[in-house]
Amino acid sequence: MSVKPWRDVIRHLQWSDADAPTALALMTQWEAVADLQLNDTVNGVLAAVRSEGDVALVRFTEQFDRHRNALEIPAGEWAAARARIAPELEAALVAAGERVREYHQHQSAADWSYTDALGNSLGQRIRPLDRVGVYVPGGKAAYPSSVLMNVMPAKVAGVSEIIMVVPTPDGVVNDAVLAAADIAGVDRVFGIGGAQAVAALAFGTESVPAVDKIVGPGNAYVAAAKRAVFGRVGIDMIAGPSEILVVCDDSSNPEWVAMDLFSQAEHDEMAQSILVSLSPRMTTAVLDAMSRLLPSLERREIVEVSLRERAVIVDVASTEQACELINQVAPEHLELCVDDSTALMAGIRHAGAIFLGHRAPESLGDYCAGPNHVLPTSGTARFASPLGVYDFVKRSSVMQISAEGSQVLGQIASVLGRAEGLTAHARAAEMRLAHD
Amino acid sequence: MSVKPWRDVIRHLQWSDADAPTALALMTQWEAVADLQLNDTVNGVLAAVRSEGDVALVRFTEQFDRHRNALEIPAGEWAAARARIAPELEAALVAAGERVREYHQHQSAADWSYTDALGNSLGQRIRPLDRVGVYVPGGKAAYPSSVLMNVMPAKVAGVSEIIMVVPTPDGVVNDAVLAAADIAGVDRVFGIGGAQAVAALAFGTESVPAVDKIVGPGNAYVAAAKRAVFGRVGIDMIAGPSEILVVCDDSSNPEWVAMDLFSQAEHDEMAQSILVSLSPRMTTAVLDAMSRLLPSLERREIVEVSLRERAVIVDVASTEQACELINQVAPEHLELCVDDSTALMAGIRHAGAIFLGHRAPESLGDYCAGPNHVLPTSGTARFASPLGVYDFVKRSSVMQISAEGSQVLGQIASVLGRAEGLTAHARAAEMRLAHD
Repeated sequence: MSVKPWRDVIRHLQWSDADAPTALALMTQWEAVADLQLNDTVNGVLAAVRSEGDVALVRFTEQFDRHRNALEIPAGEWAAARARIAPELEAALVAAGERVREYHQHQSAADWSYTDALGNSLGQRIRPLDRVGVYVPGGKAAYPSSVLMNVMPAKVAGVSEIIMVVPTPDGVVNDAVLAAADIAGVDRVFGIGGAQAVAALAFGTESVPAVDKIVGPGNAYVAAAKRAVFGRVGIDMIAGPSEILVVCDDSSNPEWVAMDLFSQAEHDEMAQSILVSLSPRMTTAVLDAMSRLLPSLERREIVEVSLRERAVIVDVASTEQACELINQVAPEHLELCVDDSTALMAGIRHAGAIFLGHRAPESLGDYCAGPNHVLPTSGTARFASPLGVYDFVKRSSVMQISAEGSQVLGQIASVLGRAEGLTAHARAAEMRLAHD
Repeated sequence: MSVKPWRDVIRHLQWSDADAPTALALMTQWEAVADLQLNDTVNGVLAAVRSEGDVALVRFTEQFDRHRNALEIPAGEWAAARARIAPELEAALVAAGERVREYHQHQSAADWSYTDALGNSLGQRIRPLDRVGVYVPGGKAAYPSSVLMNVMPAKVAGVSEIIMVVPTPDGVVNDAVLAAADIAGVDRVFGIGGAQAVAALAFGTESVPAVDKIVGPGNAYVAAAKRAVFGRVGIDMIAGPSEILVVCDDSSNPEWVAMDLFSQAEHDEMAQSILVSLSPRMTTAVLDAMSRLLPSLERREIVEVSLRERAVIVDVASTEQACELINQVAPEHLELCVDDSTALMAGIRHAGAIFLGHRAPESLGDYCAGPNHVLPTSGTARFASPLGVYDFVKRSSVMQISAEGSQVLGQIASVLGRAEGLTAHARAAEMRLAHD
C-alpha cells in the first residue's frame, strides 16, 4: 500500500505572494456548464409530463429507473421501513430530527405593524406556503439526513402539505430514507425522480399534486429542471459541489484537521477541501497526518481524486490575511480550529456555516448539531443563506390609510404619478383627496 | 367620442358556476414564453461582455442605445439633475423615500443564539451583502419611484456599495431617475442597459464592478439575462405583468374602484385588472363609472386594450367565496374596498400587498405609503414576498460545541455517518469522542 507524500500532490499557496488571490480564485471557481443536449432532454421531459401527466411520468420512470411500481409509496411502507432499520439508527434519526427542529424554531418570524404619525397602520404578514415538494436523491447518495434537513424547516414554518419524491432505481426503496420521512413528518411520498419528478411537482399530474416550491439536491438533470420551472414555482439554490475551509494554527489537532478535510473530500470527486494555516509547523503536521490516515479510509479512492484535483493549502501570515482569504472564498463550511475562534470570526463576512473551535467538526453540523446542512456552495454564501424556515414562508405587505393619511399621501402620489405620466394613478389618489 | 358599454366587453364570471374557477385560472395564468432566438441573443451578449469587458459593453450600447457616451454617469450629474427637476417633484421624492426607509427599517433582523442543555452555543449571524446592482429601465418606462423602491431596502440592510444601471437611449438621461438615485443614496450609476448591463454586473468589466446580487425590473432580454446568471449572482424574482384584484360591496365608492382598476390597466396592455363583487348592484355601478370615466383618461388606449384582453369581473355570493377566489389568484395587489376589510383579510393566505378599506388605493402603495412596490406577480405570491431588507442580507449558521456536546452529538453523528457510508464523517466525530 503506497503512502502518498501529499505535500507533493496538493496545491500549496503562500497568501503573501502577489498572484495567490487570483490563483485561489481560479481553483475555487465552479460553474455549471450549460449543457445544451442535457437542457433539450430536460425540456422534453418537462413538456411531456406537463401535457401527458401520469402517463409520461410512468413511462420515464420505467425508462430511467427500470420499474413500473405504483407512483405513490403509502405511509404504511414508511412505518414498515422504520421498523426494519437498526434501533440505534432509528434513535439517532429521532434525536437528530429533534435537535434540527429546536434550532429552526428560533428562525420563526412574527407579523408586525406600526402606526405612523398620520395614523396609518403599516405592516407585514408572514404565512407558510401551502404545499412544498422535497426532492431526495436515490441510489447510492440517498441520505436520510437530507430528508430531515429539508423537511424540518418546512414543518417548523407550518407548511400544510409536504410532498417528498425519491427515485427508487430498479424499484428498490431505501429503508433509512423512508424512516426519515416518517420521523420528519412528510405528508406523502412518491417513488419518482429526475426531471420527471420536478415536472410532476411543478405542473401536477393526476397522482402528484402541484406544489408551490421545490427544494432539495439532485443531479444535473434535476438542477436543470429546477432552473427551468423557477418562476412558476419557487426553488432553493442550485447547488454546486460541496466545500470546506479549515483554519488551523499551532493549537490545532492535526489528525482532527486531516479527518475533517477527508470528510469533505469523501463526498465525491468534485468536493473541495481547503486548509488555511497560520502555522507552517501545523501545515506539515496536518500533511503528515493525512499521509498517515489516508490509507485507512473506506472511501480512499474518492478522497484521493478529490484531494489531487481540488484541494488547496494556503499559508497565511496573520489572522487578517486569513479573513481576507475566507471572505474571497465565501466557503460553504468554515471550521475555525483555533483556540480563539470567536475573535477570528469577527473578521469574517461570508460563510454558509461557521464551526467554532476544536470540538466542532463539520460532521456534527451535517447530522445533528441543529443548524441546517443545506448551505450555499461555491462562493454563493456572498449572497445566499442556509436553508431555513424563511424559505418556507412568504410575506404580504398590509396598509390601512387614515383620513389624514389619505390627504398627505395623496398629494405625494399625485405629484409622482403625474411626473411618471401615470395619471390614473394620480387621479385614484386625488379622488380620495377631493372627498374630504 | 364613443362611450363603450364595458359590461359587454369585460369578461364576467359567476363564482358559483362550476366552471368559474377553471375559467379564471386560464385568464390569470401567465407564462414567459421561452423564446429560443431571444435566449441565443442574450447568451451571445453575456459571453461577449464576459470575455471582452468594456469593449463589448461599449459596442452593444452603441448598437442598442445609439450612443457612445462614457459608461459611468458621475455623481455631479445626479446632483445637477436633482436641481433641474421641479421643486415639488423633488420634495415628493424625498418624502416618499423617507417613508419607504421608515417602513423597511421594521424588516431588519438581528443575530441570535442560544445555549442548549449540553452547553453548545448555536445561532445565526445576519450580514448585508457587499455589493448590489439595481437595474432601472430606461426610456418611457423610466420611473423614479422604482429607484427608491429597489435601493431603499438595500440601504437599510447596510449594503456597502449599490451600483445602479439605467439605459440612456440616444444618450438621453432621465432627470427624475438621476434625482431619485441621488436621494436614495446609490454609490455609482452607469448609463447602460439590456442584457449587456446584466452581464457587466454579473461578471464585472474594467469599468463596472461585479456585484453579488442583481435586482430590478427589465424587458424580456433583461429577464432572460438574469435567469442565465442566477447562481453566479443572486437575483430577485423574474416579474410577469402586473395585476390588481379589487373586492367591492355595497359600501364601495364605484368611481374610486373604477379608477383603481384603470390605474392598473394603464401600466401596459398586458396588465390585468380583476373586480370581485359581493354586490350585483355595485358591479353595475362600477361598470357605469368605468364607462363614464374612461373617455377622460390620458392613457385611454392602453387601458382599453388591457381591459378588453385581460380584465375580469367575478360576482361572488359570500366573503368565503371571495377568499377562495383570492387564494386561487394570489394577486400581486389586493384592495379590499369594503367597510370591514380586516375581517375579510383574515381568510386570505396569498397576496403581495393588501390595501385595507376605501382610502388605500394601490397608487399610495406604489409611491409613498412605505411598503415596497416590487411585489410577486402572476400568482407567485403563493411562494414569494415583496422586495425587502431580507433580500439584501444573508445568514451564516454558527455553532460552538461543548465538551459534553461533542460526546453526545459525536455518538449520533457516528451512527448516522456510518449508516450513510460516509465513514470519514463518522470518524471525525469519533476522534473527538476518544479524546475525553
